[in-house]
Amino acid sequence: MSNQKLEVFNPYNLKLIKEISVVGKEEVKKALETAHTLFLDRSKWIPAHERIEILEKVQEIMKSKVEELTKTAAEEGGKPYQDSKVEVLRAINGVKIASEEIARLNGEQIPMGITASSVGRIAFTTREPIGVVASISAFNHPLNLIIHQTVTAFAAGCPVIVKPASTTPLSCLSFVEILKEAGVPEGWVQCLIMDNEAAETVVTDKRINYLSFIGSAKIGWYLKSKLAPGTRCALEHGGAAPVIVEPDANIEDMIPALAKGGFYHAGQVCVSVQKVYAHESIARKVAEQIASAGEKMKVGDPLDEDTEVGPLILPKEVDRVEEWVEEAKSKGGEILSGGKRISDTCYAPTVIFNPPQNVKVSQEEIFGPVVCVYSYSDRLEAIESANSLDYHFQAAVFTQDIDIALDTVQRLNATAVMVNDHTAFRVDWMPFGGRDSSGEGLGGIPYSMHEMTREKLMVIKSKLL
Amino acid sequence: MSNQKLEVFNPYNLKLIKEISVVGKEEVKKALETAHTLFLDRSKWIPAHERIEILEKVQEIMKSKVEELTKTAAEEGGKPYQDSKVEVLRAINGVKIASEEIARLNGEQIPMGITASSVGRIAFTTREPIGVVASISAFNHPLNLIIHQTVTAFAAGCPVIVKPASTTPLSCLSFVEILKEAGVPEGWVQCLIMDNEAAETVVTDKRINYLSFIGSAKIGWYLKSKLAPGTRCALEHGGAAPVIVEPDANIEDMIPALAKGGFYHAGQVCVSVQKVYAHESIARKVAEQIASAGEKMKVGDPLDEDTEVGPLILPKEVDRVEEWVEEAKSKGGEILSGGKRISDTCYAPTVIFNPPQNVKVSQEEIFGPVVCVYSYSDRLEAIESANSLDYHFQAAVFTQDIDIALDTVQRLNATAVMVNDHTAFRVDWMPFGGRDSSGEGLGGIPYSMHEMTREKLMVIKSKLL
Amino acid sequence: MSNQKLEVFNPYNLKLIKEISVVGKEEVKKALETAHTLFLDRSKWIPAHERIEILEKVQEIMKSKVEELTKTAAEEGGKPYQDSKVEVLRAINGVKIASEEIARLNGEQIPMGITASSVGRIAFTTREPIGVVASISAFNHPLNLIIHQTVTAFAAGCPVIVKPASTTPLSCLSFVEILKEAGVPEGWVQCLIMDNEAAETVVTDKRINYLSFIGSAKIGWYLKSKLAPGTRCALEHGGAAPVIVEPDANIEDMIPALAKGGFYHAGQVCVSVQKVYAHESIARKVAEQIASAGEKMKVGDPLDEDTEVGPLILPKEVDRVEEWVEEAKSKGGEILSGGKRISDTCYAPTVIFNPPQNVKVSQEEIFGPVVCVYSYSDRLEAIESANSLDYHFQAAVFTQDIDIALDTVQRLNATAVMVNDHTAFRVDWMPFGGRDSSGEGLGGIPYSMHEMTREKLMVIKSKLL
Amino acid sequence: MSNQKLEVFNPYNLKLIKEISVVGKEEVKKALETAHTLFLDRSKWIPAHERIEILEKVQEIMKSKVEELTKTAAEEGGKPYQDSKVEVLRAINGVKIASEEIARLNGEQIPMGITASSVGRIAFTTREPIGVVASISAFNHPLNLIIHQTVTAFAAGCPVIVKPASTTPLSCLSFVEILKEAGVPEGWVQCLIMDNEAAETVVTDKRINYLSFIGSAKIGWYLKSKLAPGTRCALEHGGAAPVIVEPDANIEDMIPALAKGGFYHAGQVCVSVQKVYAHESIARKVAEQIASAGEKMKVGDPLDEDTEVGPLILPKEVDRVEEWVEEAKSKGGEILSGGKRISDTCYAPTVIFNPPQNVKVSQEEIFGPVVCVYSYSDRLEAIESANSLDYHFQAAVFTQDIDIALDTVQRLNATAVMVNDHTAFRVDWMPFGGRDSSGEGLGGIPYSMHEMTREKLMVIKSKLL
Repeated sequence: MSNQKLEVFNPYNLKLIKEISVVGKEEVKKALETAHTLFLDRSKWIPAHERIEILEKVQEIMKSKVEELTKTAAEEGGKPYQDSKVEVLRAINGVKIASEEIARLNGEQIPMGITASSVGRIAFTTREPIGVVASISAFNHPLNLIIHQTVTAFAAGCPVIVKPASTTPLSCLSFVEILKEAGVPEGWVQCLIMDNEAAETVVTDKRINYLSFIGSAKIGWYLKSKLAPGTRCALEHGGAAPVIVEPDANIEDMIPALAKGGFYHAGQVCVSVQKVYAHESIARKVAEQIASAGEKMKVGDPLDEDTEVGPLILPKEVDRVEEWVEEAKSKGGEILSGGKRISDTCYAPTVIFNPPQNVKVSQEEIFGPVVCVYSYSDRLEAIESANSLDYHFQAAVFTQDIDIALDTVQRLNATAVMVNDHTAFRVDWMPFGGRDSSGEGLGGIPYSMHEMTREKLMVIKSKLL
Repeated sequence: MSNQKLEVFNPYNLKLIKEISVVGKEEVKKALETAHTLFLDRSKWIPAHERIEILEKVQEIMKSKVEELTKTAAEEGGKPYQDSKVEVLRAINGVKIASEEIARLNGEQIPMGITASSVGRIAFTTREPIGVVASISAFNHPLNLIIHQTVTAFAAGCPVIVKPASTTPLSCLSFVEILKEAGVPEGWVQCLIMDNEAAETVVTDKRINYLSFIGSAKIGWYLKSKLAPGTRCALEHGGAAPVIVEPDANIEDMIPALAKGGFYHAGQVCVSVQKVYAHESIARKVAEQIASAGEKMKVGDPLDEDTEVGPLILPKEVDRVEEWVEEAKSKGGEILSGGKRISDTCYAPTVIFNPPQNVKVSQEEIFGPVVCVYSYSDRLEAIESANSLDYHFQAAVFTQDIDIALDTVQRLNATAVMVNDHTAFRVDWMPFGGRDSSGEGLGGIPYSMHEMTREKLMVIKSKLL
Repeated sequence: MSNQKLEVFNPYNLKLIKEISVVGKEEVKKALETAHTLFLDRSKWIPAHERIEILEKVQEIMKSKVEELTKTAAEEGGKPYQDSKVEVLRAINGVKIASEEIARLNGEQIPMGITASSVGRIAFTTREPIGVVASISAFNHPLNLIIHQTVTAFAAGCPVIVKPASTTPLSCLSFVEILKEAGVPEGWVQCLIMDNEAAETVVTDKRINYLSFIGSAKIGWYLKSKLAPGTRCALEHGGAAPVIVEPDANIEDMIPALAKGGFYHAGQVCVSVQKVYAHESIARKVAEQIASAGEKMKVGDPLDEDTEVGPLILPKEVDRVEEWVEEAKSKGGEILSGGKRISDTCYAPTVIFNPPQNVKVSQEEIFGPVVCVYSYSDRLEAIESANSLDYHFQAAVFTQDIDIALDTVQRLNATAVMVNDHTAFRVDWMPFGGRDSSGEGLGGIPYSMHEMTREKLMVIKSKLL
Repeated sequence: MSNQKLEVFNPYNLKLIKEISVVGKEEVKKALETAHTLFLDRSKWIPAHERIEILEKVQEIMKSKVEELTKTAAEEGGKPYQDSKVEVLRAINGVKIASEEIARLNGEQIPMGITASSVGRIAFTTREPIGVVASISAFNHPLNLIIHQTVTAFAAGCPVIVKPASTTPLSCLSFVEILKEAGVPEGWVQCLIMDNEAAETVVTDKRINYLSFIGSAKIGWYLKSKLAPGTRCALEHGGAAPVIVEPDANIEDMIPALAKGGFYHAGQVCVSVQKVYAHESIARKVAEQIASAGEKMKVGDPLDEDTEVGPLILPKEVDRVEEWVEEAKSKGGEILSGGKRISDTCYAPTVIFNPPQNVKVSQEEIFGPVVCVYSYSDRLEAIESANSLDYHFQAAVFTQDIDIALDTVQRLNATAVMVNDHTAFRVDWMPFGGRDSSGEGLGGIPYSMHEMTREKLMVIKSKLL
């Protein structure tokens, strides 16, 4: 153990919650060796039915600790209690999804005999674990992302080393305890509290076969470029989450969805609604109604049960958002609501109408409680604008027209497009992940598990076939 | 060979085209024996790559005979030249689909080890031919249905005995010649010109493993009840082809589709548009425009290149349609167009507005160039009415509204529902077949081929696994 | 309620366990109406997530009643306590499998645009419940078969009417109580204690969309021939369960497997080992060792925890087995062990060496604790003999040679072939079912659920596609 | 066009075949712009049915030019005429595979409603082209690799820029002409003859969405580390191709397979047999027989129809192989055949018995006509040794024992393991690609096409669902 300590703060009131020891070089080295050794020795592998039993036990334990897990997550991460509870329940469901998927890590027959050169053979694939996984996680879902990045690996038969976000390590540590209690043998899921340098050492080690990274694009692509030959990766970064609103859309249903999608967890979600392109005939109305919905939201202490919007993760993020909104305002964006900090740690839900293209709120991922509404006259131009950033993750379109809906889904550059729903919709079994600069590889628990395995083909030649 | 002869007539001018010998009991017996023997002797099976090569050759030969095949089909079946040509081109594509699907008749891994009782095993499925197929075909697509009922079997590795419709055997006989020319070995595809009694003998024989039947529901369900234990079947009967037209539908695009879907091949298609339920605000307009489109169609000699509607297959069918329309008229249905025979063999494209529920055109499959348009005030009631017959095959809904479209698709009892297209849309690789009284099993070339094979599971137990 | 009573006996000591009321015509009529009405009214359908929650609750309740369910099954069905406990645990796992499969009843995209005739469209399939299911069950797994025939239907969204075997209704009745306790709403799973005439009335009713039948081939095929048009069915009958034993097989591992596979539940399993074809160089040795293993098995009261073989289900079955064995003996079969009744209800585990082909034990499914061992000199001839009966279900081959193993798997006419394991191996998620006279349709919980749903195709046409 | 020229030599006689102009910076820039513009403008996309028609035309043209294509490939690449002809026929089949796969680039339904949070939605995925592909190809299959790296992209709907190997550009140029003749529109497949610097410019350009690289590991992993954020890649490098030979293996069948697998194309194939681990009881015999088979092979001019082994691609490769074999010999490896150069360009088929572990032939991919045979006493140790290099691609095991076969398949670290066949078996529709240092991504034409597309999820929310 190094002498270094990690201090974990409550992001709302900035009080210290806990101090944790940071691991040193020796521990990192040992963790890698432990994981690698487990993987190389097939006699140590945990049979599928035991992995299933363990994960069923994990669900049971989690169900008995919902309240505790919710508070830990809310306190360290700042996500309001209600939403943190949803996260915990999702996390339990996530363990179930992973457990069920174990039975689906299967192969298939590959045809032989369909050309003269392939007669006399029969061929099948199977799937096997890819090897040691390194997971680098993010703060905004301190429990659920850990499920996505550790349980998937364990379920797929891979030893995993996980580094939680430095701001929210407590949920991860609690979860690792639960895994232990449920019977996960020593070494299969190792949580290392470490600094970025140590993390880079782990990630780029030759013995790592798979990197699962959730966080900023800058760090993600940097790490990818440093991977050892043969290390696969999944990178999940942010997006711009554009929404196209057609004049025939049902506004009444849409507003609560967009407000929730934009201000949920103070906008600190990689698929938060950020950029709403609304037809000029209704754009101001849409913007005003989102603004109004945002104004009604209760901003405050995440541990209060009726809080709807909590703090940003760090005070410097409040500064950043403040600065970006100011810039947008000074360059002509109209502030319809919010537009100001509420405290050192909270920023008011904000709607900006028609900010110009060349300001930060239009060009970057905001990661704060700010929704920009842009008026358009031509749908295809709006789509082109939505597609113009490098970040492509989830998107949405609101319309009643089936042709417009399908065409917009086709044209938006996104991994997922919601029709008549906000961009932040996600269930943990659906494919999920950014495209282009927004990430690489495919998330969603079953998809991650498939990426953490690899196919092996067996071709049997026989004169009797 | 029996002394019996089958006379094939041109259904438009009732001239004799050809006389064909009908097979006798001995030949039926021999055909069954031949097919069964081929199947039992694995050394006679044709390797997949040879089946592919043969079917590629079949396509080549067919491409060189498009004109000839078109004329044969049009002459014996009465489907207009243009549409017969489309049928021939589809038939060629069908052979291609079957040929490609051979490489897709594969198995998959079945998970083992996911419970304690299944450890130490590995399991895979493969697919193998089901055995001898008997195909009873229909007149309305004299070439394409033969492809669906023989090439599928051959491609799947099954010997097949086919009985073409007694009105349209010539296309089948030509095709069997093409198969021979392409290298299909003796006995794999046997075309038997036989009477119904002989056909029943074949179909109910214990050595038949699969019956493919296209034709009337009455005969289909009768044959099914007579099958030997172990014989599987696919039955393709008629349907009622309901269409729901919502007030927001694009009428301009819809009318040509409905007129084509209703009057194509004089309505003698199992998914012909028959019953259009249109919202009361536009029902008469829709009906009048279909009527008007029908009136503009050229009815006449199927061998003329510009004919759009040909004869019914038999004069007695003209009588039947005449009688049914008369009944509808006498009970209050309003005849907007047609409503009369044009000759002994042709009936005019007819639209009936609001015929009552208790007449034959409302209760039965018309199988003639007659479209009924019903006015409705409540969509759910219209759907209930559409679902109320026992016959459920393809259906359609015209609307621009995405919610209405999806909901109507969900609620219509049908195998396929087209959104903003007529009910008779079909491509040969899509799943196709009636439900409930309209049939059993799933057509579409790849689906038929899968039904003509069966899975075999291999479970290997090993102490080393 | 009719005045008729069903008496349920303990098949070992023939004591009356319970009397149950048999339903009358009115109740049958009402049950059909209830089920049909539920299916027609989509507003009554139970959402998928509620079905999942209910089935998770069912598992919980079952886990708390393992002992009770085991005893009920053992007492009424005569399967030894230990094996009945295995059945109960499998049944719980079966509910889990069904619950998980709900999330897998999905459709797929059907390609459009790959020919000129299909451009401008997009198409998808979905799966929907088939309608009302009627299940007729068998005595040999009084709980587990009920899971296979009711939980599958419920999970797939179909109302189900189930008739348990008249000898073993109590496990079914207990299970239906559990379903109720877990929250299955009224009418979705109706257990009817009825006579065969009433059962036929149910099964052949037009409102039944699917028949699931487990029992004798004679009744199964008869019922199939009487189904209303449109009713689909799955029939699971008996088999002959041949085993090929090559001279290089590992005898030590094989004998316990064959003895268990042959004498488990007194051979009253549709995939019991019945006919062992062993190479002449080892045939007698194999037969003698199975005989010896059989002799060591404890035959007796199924409620005793150390009983290995219990009674036959009815005394008349003991008579039948006795008669068949006598016939085989009198025609030259050599009795190596057993060959006699132990009591009115139990028959000794019996091995017959080389019985002739024309006796009942060689020609029919024995369904008793009798294994016939045939000596062969040529493997292909042994396979031909194994294939020669009409009954084809599961089979096995014992050999170390990979070429011989694969070739024998290919050549045996069976739905499943075990390599180096007995024929009675089954897990509830694998495909399972007889071929040819042995049955129709495919069992295994996920497969049954797929058969209890049907695909619906939606093709959307759009000028913008 | 730059002033630079690329000289293409016959690797056997070192005569100049042709001089080709090398493109300059401006042309590279323009090519990137052309491809990117095509991809951005959906109106320029080639409909699926037109892509299919074009690829069918491509096959036709290729069939008419088999001789010409064979000679070009053999002359520039040095692969013997007979094997080059096989390559051309495979290439034609590859175009067919790609053409057929277009209809299989489909999506699926993603379940909704299985949790309370997902009710009221329906979801489907579709697949769309990933964007501009850059392909860097290798010399050893100058035509077939080009198919794998360009036709896949075109079929998947992606514009592609291809750089053939600098030693074998002529086959690629011929093929691009064929594409043009078949109707591939301008800009979709651009062949650029360029130096490595220019290639790096292309590959690392932000507008490239996918890199397909076949060649040396060193360059592959380097390029991967330089890709722009968002660029996916497939890397196909070399392997070590270990073979385990058990004492019960059928030697007679094995020797021709191993000799062909080791000496085919002078061992210049990424899955060439290189390292044979044979049980000590038969190791020398196996080695001597491979040696003897190698000695009988005719080494010489690739354009001669009876040549079995041609030159290495460059004289310096002969030097390298010579040096490596010398090293192995000097350190104790026993040369059983060959072990010497035949000319400046050809090296004799060579078998080395028991070379030590620390020499280059044991540690590196040889890429020459050299097979090493190692004697082992323990199978698991042999496997461990086979797995110990970083390079894992295809492998093989020879044994008759089914348990040993399956266990060895499980334990060998390889993408594909052949049972009783050599490591170089490949058909173009099977999954293919190296693991760990041997590559990334999955080849095989259908797999490449799937990697060149990406899924898009559409989630439709509706109150009527």
